[in-house]
Amino acid sequence: MKVLEQRIQAEGNILSDRVLKVDSFLNHQVDTQLAVAIGQEFARLFAHEQITKVLTIEASGIQFAMAAGIALNVPFVYAKKKKAITQGDQVYSASVHSFTRGETYQVTIVQDYLQPGERVLIVDDFLATGAALVGLADIVEQAGAILVGVGCVIEKTFQEGRGLLEERGIAVQSLARISAMSPGHVEFIPEQPLIVSSLNRTGAGV
Amino acid sequence: MKVLEQRIQAEGNILSDRVLKVDSFLNHQVDTQLAVAIGQEFARLFAHEQITKVLTIEASGIQFAMAAGIALNVPFVYAKKKKAITQGDQVYSASVHSFTRGETYQVTIVQDYLQPGERVLIVDDFLATGAALVGLADIVEQAGAILVGVGCVIEKTFQEGRGLLEERGIAVQSLARISAMSPGHVEFIPEQPLIVSSLNRTGAGV
Repeated sequence: MKVLEQRIQAEGNILSDRVLKVDSFLNHQVDTQLAVAIGQEFARLFAHEQITKVLTIEASGIQFAMAAGIALNVPFVYAKKKKAITQGDQVYSASVHSFTRGETYQVTIVQDYLQPGERVLIVDDFLATGAALVGLADIVEQAGAILVGVGCVIEKTFQEGRGLLEERGIAVQSLARISAMSPGHVEFIPEQPLIVSSLNRTGAGV
Repeated sequence: MKVLEQRIQAEGNILSDRVLKVDSFLNHQVDTQLAVAIGQEFARLFAHEQITKVLTIEASGIQFAMAAGIALNVPFVYAKKKKAITQGDQVYSASVHSFTRGETYQVTIVQDYLQPGERVLIVDDFLATGAALVGLADIVEQAGAILVGVGCVIEKTFQEGRGLLEERGIAVQSLARISAMSPGHVEFIPEQPLIVSSLNRTGAGV
């Protein structure tokens, strides 16, 4: 997605060869028009999948799940990282380690909101280690729902996330794929063949 | 907002005279079309305010800030509840006690994303004790920005939140105002005069 790559080039803050901050436009301050476009792109990439629900994890996935839900005209659900006292119901849960925060937490979804047979698209802001996304995929499986794929805004292709997901047969689409980075420099690799071919079909300038 | 009151009547789960769960359509599973309509209503109520930014707090305010930002065509920023290790910058912060979770946390916003003179609308899902909203109002003041008002999806009028905000001269608009509730029963009170008059002007069926 060209406009996204350009924004990462212009506004991304690369702290090291592994840490990229995009909090001026994606996940602290949010450019709402860009987020809407990201949602539309996820909807286009998975248009043939008859998605009934979008799933993400709080907090930084919510704006993209909202945008994808708007574009697909379906609800979204966000997994919570901590059980609130008002959440007394039966939940699906998975254990997720965050390398950014250096802690392991339990992510949960109330069972009522993920039904057997639902066709689920998981979205998130980053695909790096894949830990959060594997946890969400586990939850979809616990629910007996059908995972149609994972859509990520930014992928760090030099980390193991995509491999872990593809090992499980999960279709992964990322809108910006970073193969290498260092302060002041970021390298993108072309989108996946599936994306390129659908781009050619529609001629969309993403 | 009539459609919102109807959804609360039909789908709200009232656990006690103080705890209302709306997580089937507002803040765990999210009805994206309803959230979009809520954003449009906030935009309409504050249309004359030349808002430049929407401010909320993670996680359950994000979908409504996103919707309001889309409707107003401005970015939004969400305050974070815990400093991430990638967030090394100068921040504005406020201490907020959550009665739902029984803990006090620090909410922060990177200073770059709230500039002096910006015209800010704060939005959140609930107005009850007002603790989170007062914290956000403090942050707007620290930044030297202008708080044009607070928009809440659901207000519990029997708690002190509105009073605390109005004491500071803050304009508060809520889309559903609950005056009393108990399991199986919820009472709404009419919207504020300002809202009623603008409704009469536009004839919108909210």
